[in-house]
Amino acid sequence: MAAQRITVYSAKVELALKESGLSYKRFEIDLQNKPEWYAPKVNPASKVPAIAYGGPDTEPENPSPESTKIAESYVLLEFIADLVQSSKPLLPATPVGRAQARFFIETATSKFVTPWYSSVSKGDDPSGVLPAIDAIQDLLPPQGGYAVGNDWTIADAAITPFLARALVTFKHDIGAYDEGEGKKVWELLQTDSKYARFRKYYADVTSRQSFKETFFEDIIVEGFSKRFGETRAAKKAASAS
Amino acid sequence: MAAQRITVYSAKVELALKESGLSYKRFEIDLQNKPEWYAPKVNPASKVPAIAYGGPDTEPENPSPESTKIAESYVLLEFIADLVQSSKPLLPATPVGRAQARFFIETATSKFVTPWYSSVSKGDDPSGVLPAIDAIQDLLPPQGGYAVGNDWTIADAAITPFLARALVTFKHDIGAYDEGEGKKVWELLQTDSKYARFRKYYADVTSRQSFKETFFEDIIVEGFSKRFGETRAAKKAASAS
Repeated sequence: MAAQRITVYSAKVELALKESGLSYKRFEIDLQNKPEWYAPKVNPASKVPAIAYGGPDTEPENPSPESTKIAESYVLLEFIADLVQSSKPLLPATPVGRAQARFFIETATSKFVTPWYSSVSKGDDPSGVLPAIDAIQDLLPPQGGYAVGNDWTIADAAITPFLARALVTFKHDIGAYDEGEGKKVWELLQTDSKYARFRKYYADVTSRQSFKETFFEDIIVEGFSKRFGETRAAKKAASAS
Repeated sequence: MAAQRITVYSAKVELALKESGLSYKRFEIDLQNKPEWYAPKVNPASKVPAIAYGGPDTEPENPSPESTKIAESYVLLEFIADLVQSSKPLLPATPVGRAQARFFIETATSKFVTPWYSSVSKGDDPSGVLPAIDAIQDLLPPQGGYAVGNDWTIADAAITPFLARALVTFKHDIGAYDEGEGKKVWELLQTDSKYARFRKYYADVTSRQSFKETFFEDIIVEGFSKRFGETRAAKKAASAS
């Protein structure tokens, strides 16, 4: 089967694409200001990430009706793993191993994403992520390695972008929560011996080439500051008045 | 690879097991009255469904520590499909086909389950399920067939148990919603030409042997009447006082 063209909308699944070795184009959708063509031409649900797969070579802004459009982060990660199943396995080989990877994805993302995002966007206490970090640590192989073993898999692809965004926003104390609360959680995660296994895991996933090529701290800082910097200021003003 | 023993806790993934041709034991967990051994020995999250896989032959109430315990409906459906991948495919063969099946699971279950369950348990209007039925119809192949084509897949396994529970509760008007509202939705789904494709799909999935062997209307009626019959009575009494 000849390789098909891939255009990915959003960086969220780019990590898996980089690791797959497939070539692709990336087009970042500004969620605050979605281009008009995105829903009709790519994803009627108007959400990211999405992929246009196959069809003729076009600009990302003008995907061909002949390409297949695929949406939902989890579906896309499995899709990328399926595409390279024989050349670059991104899931374990055994049914039990694959189930463990899928369970990791389900557990880690469902527990982590909401408390992080509600702290940044609504001002909930950032320490709300700590039970999720505990749960992730409990799932990680204690002796080291990636989410479900010695090989990097789509389980790592699923959680790494969220962990990285969370740690950067907390480190720079960006979000609607009270000043200093993000930095406090960040420092705890850097120093408390309780989180040693998590720190090792985070260092392992973020030192990979695929991460360095797809994640840029300054862009995250700029984007989140712009979106949520004023939320904290508004909250402060409201509580002072 | 020799077949491993399988014990499944809850009927929710039994449909896929039946279709897989694998042999298994089933043990139903009473969610209102969970046995003490269930969390420590099977699923620490104390949720169903779960599977115990491999290890020596034991009673379901006493699963061996040697068996692997797997949880989360979606993870289990993929696990069953992986176990019989070569003998009885339960997912399409191509990456795009597999992505469509996974997208169907994600969309159908996330849209349907909450409005149905909140109508039955909390008294929300049962017609809240209709947008989900529309979405399911939009995904179904228009010319007929199962969720994503001519072959039954785990996409059908994922939604059928919920559709069947919903239609039975509505048909018998069981739930916390106002009297007659469930039956009204049931009749609409039986007669409105708008839902012809849905009716055909429902007839197709429920006429399979696997469904007849795992779904029992009288047990659903009895269970839901017991759990939610009094909720409506209590609501009525409260609004009358």
